[in-house]
Amino acid sequence: MQPITVVTICLCLAMSIEAQRPKPCVSPPLLEGGVSVMESSTFKVTISLFSYDGLLKRFRLLANATGATQDTLLLFRERVQYRIFYQNQTCVRSALDTPFRPLEVPPDAQFLNQLVFGGSSRPGEGVLVNQWMGKVPETQGTYFSHFTQFGCLPISEVYYTPKSNWLITYFDIVSGIRDPNVFIPPPFCEEKGSRPEVL
Amino acid sequence: MQPITVVTICLCLAMSIEAQRPKPCVSPPLLEGGVSVMESSTFKVTISLFSYDGLLKRFRLLANATGATQDTLLLFRERVQYRIFYQNQTCVRSALDTPFRPLEVPPDAQFLNQLVFGGSSRPGEGVLVNQWMGKVPETQGTYFSHFTQFGCLPISEVYYTPKSNWLITYFDIVSGIRDPNVFIPPPFCEEKGSRPEVL
Repeated sequence: MQPITVVTICLCLAMSIEAQRPKPCVSPPLLEGGVSVMESSTFKVTISLFSYDGLLKRFRLLANATGATQDTLLLFRERVQYRIFYQNQTCVRSALDTPFRPLEVPPDAQFLNQLVFGGSSRPGEGVLVNQWMGKVPETQGTYFSHFTQFGCLPISEVYYTPKSNWLITYFDIVSGIRDPNVFIPPPFCEEKGSRPEVL
Repeated sequence: MQPITVVTICLCLAMSIEAQRPKPCVSPPLLEGGVSVMESSTFKVTISLFSYDGLLKRFRLLANATGATQDTLLLFRERVQYRIFYQNQTCVRSALDTPFRPLEVPPDAQFLNQLVFGGSSRPGEGVLVNQWMGKVPETQGTYFSHFTQFGCLPISEVYYTPKSNWLITYFDIVSGIRDPNVFIPPPFCEEKGSRPEVL
């Protein structure tokens, strides 16, 4: 066999292997769904509904914690957050210093593994996901995350920081925002009912 | 409207609601796949390959713990377990007192919720699962488990006991056993190489 043929075959094989290896990806920019956050030491779970706007860096979270609803709007571009209390039409505004983490597999994430949650013997029995790990320099944290192969949707993340460990699980995700008003603070947040904290 | 018509409509509605509510189910009797077990206090994860025979109450586990392979055969009907060391062709036999827990949603489990891990906007982006909870009287434990709606495959389980908390996640499940010999102890387990422990 000619050396040029051998080199061409090797190159094709290498390209074929590389094509199979999943690439870091970005989730759709507008998503809604549910998220459950578990703190490791207590196994205490907080379940929230979320609306996510990756374009304008906004989150709305509706958590049901210990019977009371916690309604939070996070505007990362404006670096402000609102805790909204509809029952008495008031708001608490405060500074938002946490950096925005978009729903994505960061470009420097390390691919670990591809797996199926559930089964693959029959349709509908499982979902194909990729496992990634990486560091978050701002928090000195390490993450192990799972994103779907199709659609690049977040499934779960184990997040270790020097202070604590977290298990975050996403579910019931749909593409798009049913009501874009969820990212606009209600009128009473800008009026006399609003109590600014540290801004 | 005639009273008999009203009663019939109400009955039909009730039956329709009941038909939508998921029922406890039993996983296929022969399964293979992967399982990851995380202990809550340390977040230490052990990943194993498993073969499961629900008919003859047998498990084979191949764990890769701290670099060394741990190969365990659990025969619950015979109440015996083998730890197998292929590298020096020896076995350690010991009594197995743990009760067999089949892969199933027990008949007395309480249905909590139906959800999609991942998304439902496009095919292949998620898997529909049911969430269950219940008690294990033998261990005074409480479980929260997820099984797929289609195929009744285990996805994950949070298991609280008075001693510790566990998060068990299943993946890459296929129906059937590729090699039925996995449940038969290798010849050297019955020979002089075998060291019985407490039997």
